[in-house]
Amino acid sequence: MFGVCFFFYNFALKFDLICHNMSTNDTSLSASKTPIAELGEFGLIKRLTQDIKLQQPSSIKGVGDDAAVLDFTKHGQEMQTLVTSDLLLEGIHFNLEYVPLKHLGYKAAVVNFSDIYAMNGTPTQIIVSLGISKRFSVEDVQALYDGIRLACEHYHVDIVGGDTTSSLTGLTISITCMGVAGKDEVVYRNGAKVNDLICVTGNLGAAYLGLQLLERERIVMQANAKATPAFEGKEYLLERQLKPQARVDIIQQLKQAGIKPTAMMDISDGLSSELMHICKQSGVGCAIYEDKLPIDYQSAVLAEEMNMSIVTCALNGGEDYELLFTCSLDDYEKLIPIDDLYLVGHITKPEYGTMLIGRNGEELSLQAQGWQAFKEN
Amino acid sequence: MFGVCFFFYNFALKFDLICHNMSTNDTSLSASKTPIAELGEFGLIKRLTQDIKLQQPSSIKGVGDDAAVLDFTKHGQEMQTLVTSDLLLEGIHFNLEYVPLKHLGYKAAVVNFSDIYAMNGTPTQIIVSLGISKRFSVEDVQALYDGIRLACEHYHVDIVGGDTTSSLTGLTISITCMGVAGKDEVVYRNGAKVNDLICVTGNLGAAYLGLQLLERERIVMQANAKATPAFEGKEYLLERQLKPQARVDIIQQLKQAGIKPTAMMDISDGLSSELMHICKQSGVGCAIYEDKLPIDYQSAVLAEEMNMSIVTCALNGGEDYELLFTCSLDDYEKLIPIDDLYLVGHITKPEYGTMLIGRNGEELSLQAQGWQAFKEN
Repeated sequence: MFGVCFFFYNFALKFDLICHNMSTNDTSLSASKTPIAELGEFGLIKRLTQDIKLQQPSSIKGVGDDAAVLDFTKHGQEMQTLVTSDLLLEGIHFNLEYVPLKHLGYKAAVVNFSDIYAMNGTPTQIIVSLGISKRFSVEDVQALYDGIRLACEHYHVDIVGGDTTSSLTGLTISITCMGVAGKDEVVYRNGAKVNDLICVTGNLGAAYLGLQLLERERIVMQANAKATPAFEGKEYLLERQLKPQARVDIIQQLKQAGIKPTAMMDISDGLSSELMHICKQSGVGCAIYEDKLPIDYQSAVLAEEMNMSIVTCALNGGEDYELLFTCSLDDYEKLIPIDDLYLVGHITKPEYGTMLIGRNGEELSLQAQGWQAFKEN
Repeated sequence: MFGVCFFFYNFALKFDLICHNMSTNDTSLSASKTPIAELGEFGLIKRLTQDIKLQQPSSIKGVGDDAAVLDFTKHGQEMQTLVTSDLLLEGIHFNLEYVPLKHLGYKAAVVNFSDIYAMNGTPTQIIVSLGISKRFSVEDVQALYDGIRLACEHYHVDIVGGDTTSSLTGLTISITCMGVAGKDEVVYRNGAKVNDLICVTGNLGAAYLGLQLLERERIVMQANAKATPAFEGKEYLLERQLKPQARVDIIQQLKQAGIKPTAMMDISDGLSSELMHICKQSGVGCAIYEDKLPIDYQSAVLAEEMNMSIVTCALNGGEDYELLFTCSLDDYEKLIPIDDLYLVGHITKPEYGTMLIGRNGEELSLQAQGWQAFKEN
């Protein structure tokens, strides 16, 4: 009935090792199956939301009325409200053959938080809308919701509403996230200036390579159900694909250091694509250096093994949810103590274009491959 | 390729008569067909959003960054933020065989505004996420978006963001609406008191009967493509189904009259279901009177013709998007001058239950049929 379990049952133990915050049963579909029709819409919503606790002082009223009520005016300073939304569709954005529902929920929430952090704000509330087809049981939906809630607990975000409905085909997840930022704190994409430094957090390409790995092993196991997926030594790549984190730690360190980036984005579509957005909106060019791109050794090993260019993975892979930002040269000294932060280049005049400087000094125009949603359809 | 047009081509003229605000081409799929892949994701988003104008002073930054930026703090009084979201899936919430895309967009936006009005607030911004399959052309998506924009212009709401992605099957529309209300103005579902009056706006059951009519004629035309749909004298029912309005006029009149309802909801799932929500959340009972239910004569005629109970349609039909509210008996005199408002009963002690008093004085327990999303799946 559900084309998922076989894959995950086989490496549930390994998977749990890397996802230590998640309980054992999130790596597979639940054994018990309560048809959703048994609870009905209101019953399901009650089950999912009954013990939601509000943590944010700005959450006045959550689930249970026509709209959620938030109060962003009582913080003693002038605050602005940030809103972002993501729509995730089964078969387009995720494949339940190798994405456990709890992880999917976790990721669906975190990618929204990441957008709010990328505005230099703090996520405070989400609204969760789910479209669910008959092949999902109450326990499945609960697992998805548990993942969303785990992310919310971790990042101190409240679930304040949503919509739950049936679907004819597959699973639809739409999450809208609200957040706040001081009026003068918000960082847009359009503020990069010539000579600004270009910084990237963490490392790039690992999430994409994690996806390639999952896809490779899925095909192996389709051919031979008794095979064991070859994940050893590559757990970090799986974690990057299946349980990404939003870089609140960097936002906090930047604030403590007194740095306000001139432009910022999170890297969801790949560094090239995001950098081109910043350059276009800021009316500038850029130069980044191939040998400065931060790459994890597991990424490099798998790229080699799969005969892929690790630089292409780092530039165009996407789904890393790291932060890309530009800041003034004057902030250089302040940047040094910040953990897990890498200078990859600098902003140039617009005439220069958006360039990658190779290891031998050659200049290549950046290509925004990104997420070509409508090409793959 | 698209199973829609045949139906609407046949009665486009009639349909335009009732939807006079919409241009002719919204009643059918566009003749020109640009594949979405030709524009790509970014091109499509640009096309849809390029001439969006922001009208609300609280909209600081709309489409084009990681999140929209809103400022609800500069209104000189303590404001609260309202947020609501609706997820609409093809085949569950709408049938494109008889719902023109422009109307669908209009309705998808208006039902969200209605939720904000039902909190006694004012809608200010929406975020629009669309999942679009290959069978839709750029012009189709533009028509959908045009409907959303028309609704936004009419209700002075800004489109400030969204997400556009491909879908494997059908059309997915997720709209999140933000709004504002003075801190002491927000009306919840849980404030109804014993002896409060129960008021309903407009009339009930027409939207449901409009849907029955469309469904009936669809079946007729499936059997005989040359048939002409029998809509004459029933245009109002179609308008109620295909182009609902949110009752901002009532909210304004209540404010002018100095009335703050004790509880309020919009009627999306049917009067019975909504009234039971209010009674449950307020810890009260209610009595409403069959002979007080406001019903349009076109509804009564079609119910008779289709051998349906008009009272059941009025109580359980849904999608009317009228307002249901309770208010203090002391406000009775102030209610009288308000247009299009009907007293249908009163709030009782909880022991009484939630009752319909029939024309002959018989008491019947209200049944919340509502929208049984997961039963029909």
